[in-house]
Amino acid sequence: MGLPAPLRLGGRGWRPGVLGRVLSTAPTTPAPRLDLRGIYPPLATPFMAQGGVDYARLEDNLRLYAQVPFRGFVVQGSNGECPLLTGPERLDIVARVRRAVPRHRLLLAGSGCESTQATIELTAGMAEAGADAVLVVTPCYYRGAMSTAALVLHYTQVAEASPVPVVLYSVPANTGLELPLEAVLALAPHPNVVGLKDSGGDITRLGLIVHKTRREDFQVLAGSAGFLLASYAVGAVGGVCALANVLGAPLCQLERLCQEGRWQEAPGLRSRAARPQVTRRFGVAGLKQAMEWFGYHGGPCRAPLLQLSEDQAAALRRAFTRNGWL
Amino acid sequence: MGLPAPLRLGGRGWRPGVLGRVLSTAPTTPAPRLDLRGIYPPLATPFMAQGGVDYARLEDNLRLYAQVPFRGFVVQGSNGECPLLTGPERLDIVARVRRAVPRHRLLLAGSGCESTQATIELTAGMAEAGADAVLVVTPCYYRGAMSTAALVLHYTQVAEASPVPVVLYSVPANTGLELPLEAVLALAPHPNVVGLKDSGGDITRLGLIVHKTRREDFQVLAGSAGFLLASYAVGAVGGVCALANVLGAPLCQLERLCQEGRWQEAPGLRSRAARPQVTRRFGVAGLKQAMEWFGYHGGPCRAPLLQLSEDQAAALRRAFTRNGWL
Amino acid sequence: MGLPAPLRLGGRGWRPGVLGRVLSTAPTTPAPRLDLRGIYPPLATPFMAQGGVDYARLEDNLRLYAQVPFRGFVVQGSNGECPLLTGPERLDIVARVRRAVPRHRLLLAGSGCESTQATIELTAGMAEAGADAVLVVTPCYYRGAMSTAALVLHYTQVAEASPVPVVLYSVPANTGLELPLEAVLALAPHPNVVGLKDSGGDITRLGLIVHKTRREDFQVLAGSAGFLLASYAVGAVGGVCALANVLGAPLCQLERLCQEGRWQEAPGLRSRAARPQVTRRFGVAGLKQAMEWFGYHGGPCRAPLLQLSEDQAAALRRAFTRNGWL
Amino acid sequence: MGLPAPLRLGGRGWRPGVLGRVLSTAPTTPAPRLDLRGIYPPLATPFMAQGGVDYARLEDNLRLYAQVPFRGFVVQGSNGECPLLTGPERLDIVARVRRAVPRHRLLLAGSGCESTQATIELTAGMAEAGADAVLVVTPCYYRGAMSTAALVLHYTQVAEASPVPVVLYSVPANTGLELPLEAVLALAPHPNVVGLKDSGGDITRLGLIVHKTRREDFQVLAGSAGFLLASYAVGAVGGVCALANVLGAPLCQLERLCQEGRWQEAPGLRSRAARPQVTRRFGVAGLKQAMEWFGYHGGPCRAPLLQLSEDQAAALRRAFTRNGWL
Repeated sequence: MGLPAPLRLGGRGWRPGVLGRVLSTAPTTPAPRLDLRGIYPPLATPFMAQGGVDYARLEDNLRLYAQVPFRGFVVQGSNGECPLLTGPERLDIVARVRRAVPRHRLLLAGSGCESTQATIELTAGMAEAGADAVLVVTPCYYRGAMSTAALVLHYTQVAEASPVPVVLYSVPANTGLELPLEAVLALAPHPNVVGLKDSGGDITRLGLIVHKTRREDFQVLAGSAGFLLASYAVGAVGGVCALANVLGAPLCQLERLCQEGRWQEAPGLRSRAARPQVTRRFGVAGLKQAMEWFGYHGGPCRAPLLQLSEDQAAALRRAFTRNGWL
Repeated sequence: MGLPAPLRLGGRGWRPGVLGRVLSTAPTTPAPRLDLRGIYPPLATPFMAQGGVDYARLEDNLRLYAQVPFRGFVVQGSNGECPLLTGPERLDIVARVRRAVPRHRLLLAGSGCESTQATIELTAGMAEAGADAVLVVTPCYYRGAMSTAALVLHYTQVAEASPVPVVLYSVPANTGLELPLEAVLALAPHPNVVGLKDSGGDITRLGLIVHKTRREDFQVLAGSAGFLLASYAVGAVGGVCALANVLGAPLCQLERLCQEGRWQEAPGLRSRAARPQVTRRFGVAGLKQAMEWFGYHGGPCRAPLLQLSEDQAAALRRAFTRNGWL
Repeated sequence: MGLPAPLRLGGRGWRPGVLGRVLSTAPTTPAPRLDLRGIYPPLATPFMAQGGVDYARLEDNLRLYAQVPFRGFVVQGSNGECPLLTGPERLDIVARVRRAVPRHRLLLAGSGCESTQATIELTAGMAEAGADAVLVVTPCYYRGAMSTAALVLHYTQVAEASPVPVVLYSVPANTGLELPLEAVLALAPHPNVVGLKDSGGDITRLGLIVHKTRREDFQVLAGSAGFLLASYAVGAVGGVCALANVLGAPLCQLERLCQEGRWQEAPGLRSRAARPQVTRRFGVAGLKQAMEWFGYHGGPCRAPLLQLSEDQAAALRRAFTRNGWL
Repeated sequence: MGLPAPLRLGGRGWRPGVLGRVLSTAPTTPAPRLDLRGIYPPLATPFMAQGGVDYARLEDNLRLYAQVPFRGFVVQGSNGECPLLTGPERLDIVARVRRAVPRHRLLLAGSGCESTQATIELTAGMAEAGADAVLVVTPCYYRGAMSTAALVLHYTQVAEASPVPVVLYSVPANTGLELPLEAVLALAPHPNVVGLKDSGGDITRLGLIVHKTRREDFQVLAGSAGFLLASYAVGAVGGVCALANVLGAPLCQLERLCQEGRWQEAPGLRSRAARPQVTRRFGVAGLKQAMEWFGYHGGPCRAPLLQLSEDQAAALRRAFTRNGWL
């Protein structure tokens, strides 16, 4: 394909500033990649009653999360209500989280916009604000025109321009568009594309991607606790799970079991953990409601998202109580 | 049923500033509604080679359109690449079009955003910039949460806050979401909701909407030339047709035939006009390519939209030549 | 374009035995085509409490239908529960209907099966039992493999073998498959393919099919009252409407208005007629329930189809009473 | 959770005649369930050039399969072209396979029809012909009416009437309908419903089903090699994989690794095995073509299924050669 490397030293040649944060490199080897392995909660965005971002409550949540062995945090995935934030809010949130979180935790910041140029600009802003990598959702409004060629060009231009590594992000439930397998395979060799967050849950596809990119520095993250264990079984290296906002410790324990090959112990834990299906059934409002029950700050969503109805809240609560979580 | 009277008594109480522009009101009656009847091209946005909006070329196009008996113009529908424009560009374009176009032509400006608050703010800006009404697309990123209740609340808040009338806009090919029939019926009686642009093309639904809102000041516009004639047959009052950017005169003639009850003459014209299916098959890039052939300025799209491939351009051209348009 | 002449010269060379039944042919011209213009109820199949076909009640219904100016009857469309009938039952029903119905009423019998060979055999049986034409639904179980090429070959083989004309039948709500436009256009010139019943309701497609087959002996029937008027507007010649089982007279009146160019009077009638949306919302069970209210025999469906729940029945009844039909 | 014991105490009371074939029962306990654990090829149906079933070639295939440690065979799943077979052919094939295959291999015979009554009758015939259990696909032509209630009633009536255990079968790619989770959970406790073959591949759903039925005698089989390993990870007990028709030995080896907890060795094997994606991309025609390359009899499909085009065949062959299978 011939993608021009921005800097390429033997292997990757990342800017040391970025990599120095997260990796210890052996002196005689080319630069290693950004190691994405682990569990990430996609942070919810608390709002004040008057509508502004509630940074104090966000920092409270981060203090509680500090005790969980997360690999890092996703800031402004779909669960962060990023399409409902203004541009300045999006950058402020990343900057605040960066200040509140130690350097060894990765920050993956959502920076995807509909236009390529806007994505490039927001990506630069996110890097400046302290993101270790950006998570770039597929543009989707013109989904009928989002051919593999269009998507490969979009991501290549973003990756070329980005000062930090890029993680592809496919979330068909929100975008109505799955990043095609062919596009993923074409982008995987790019030195500034380091992985994929796949929230679609097609495990056959996910296994194929792992298999076909096994010779690249390319890592796959599962986009939900619902298929986290299955994803590990086919070679994913971690997960961005809404459920980690409330059940972070058990999900990190599940990850450890999988990493250590203790599969026989994993399914029970997975089943308990997966069962609530918070966001699949109840969306961001369900996640924020659950956060309140578990001692975190969730609070209201921004319009047009509604709060859960009483019936929905009761059904969600039952899902947690039945498994003994509440 | 009959076509709706342009003036209708009622207790709406529109702000005279807005309505004074577009309607002559009988002295003893309350303010009449905004009469939407007619054909509107959804204006394409020409860009310069360096990427900025090419206002000069946009104004050239408007000079040519001045000779066609359009009812008005849609600024920043899907064909205007609005998701690829910045906020300031969006307002500038409306202001420029307003200056270039006489007052008796309606300007419907797209102002829908994902968040309710952002939609309210952009709506105010569009009114300030000279829009006669706003076209508000359904928010869609959280489509799983966009229940009828959520959508009715969103549109009600926008309509309450808007200084100009609101036209609902349902375009499932882009949003993956059809504004539910129940939501349309709930919103139709709102005094500041004056109609629906429906680009889905489900003619059964469209006929039902016309029938069930026949006692409201509510007008339906077909969102494509492909089902324009059929829409007239079931009671729509006009159309926003990409094809009107290149074949405006015949589409206005088709409208006149329908209005005058000369149905026997309409199908032949419709067939010729509908046949190219510009945007259904070829998207915004197809529309812009066709504009070049017909003497208008189309030019490049913004990334991530690609130009037509040579094969696509040839197929599109054949569609026009076969019917004798080129 | 004009509505097609009932007699048209051409080089088809139909088997006189078949055509003699339904057409009077001028002595010196080749055989004209089968004229499909008009309204057809897709007959429901009444069952006895023990489960067998209730032929007596079926004949009762036909006696009542004799007073309505239908063009004919569809026997074993989707509303006839044909997939729930045995092979012998399917043939018996057609034979009984043929005996009960005068020759000038067309019988269109559903004969589509998953396999080409089975379709050919059932088609022969239907012709033998007295069908004037067969209605052949798209095979669909292997929908992933039903390319245009596969479907064209299937229909061509059926048409070659069939002793009676073939009407294509596309009903995506049941089959999950729309007969592709390209397949329709490839099949339209075949001398034994005389038309299409389209139940998908995509009026743009329907108009295109009429336009692109205007030089063939090919007629389009709308598959629902919901888009019947719109279909006439774009050149369809009739409709197969579940609603005709209960509101046959007003639908035939609507057809007459359209044929006579009295479009201004049509929409009101259409609106009243279309409103109940019997089968779109309530399926075969809804149709059979409505038949009971209107004095016809509906009765139970075969399992796995369930009766309407009380709530569903009440909602359906409201749909009819609101418009004054009940 | 642990893998299910092959013998389990309980009050099922199976007919000894059926169970005697496949299980050894402890003398003082009620009959144990049917143990489904393992790999099953869904047998393809070879045809003669003139169109009839080629029983000799079918038996040749079975002789070759005798050397592979399959748990048994699926006769007339989707890959057996069952919708294209006549009723007598369907029963004959099962009887022939039963005679050719030793008793310790399970025969799961497809017996699902659109009507409940036809399914009951074919189920009885399949049991008579020697099936150990029946695989009952969801009826789907009236998918709009196939509510959970309708499906639960359908399967309950079939299970009540069936002389052999029933395996539910959900294959949305063919039926356009996924057997709802709620229906599966409602049916799982039925003593004559022993499991589910799920070909949809939604691994979150599959894991939930395993978790929520863990106290029932209910076993889940993956419907494709593509998600076999992931399915084992979440608790499935085996798989019905088209690929087993050509790569049976490696798939059985993969199963053994999973059963023995040797997960670290499994992914490589899975990747090689899953990669060809025979039926997902190429359907039954692809499977039959591949069988020819691997020394089995595949041969032509029945119409309307087409042979692979040359391009498709080349692409399929590449998929096998790239992984070293051919």
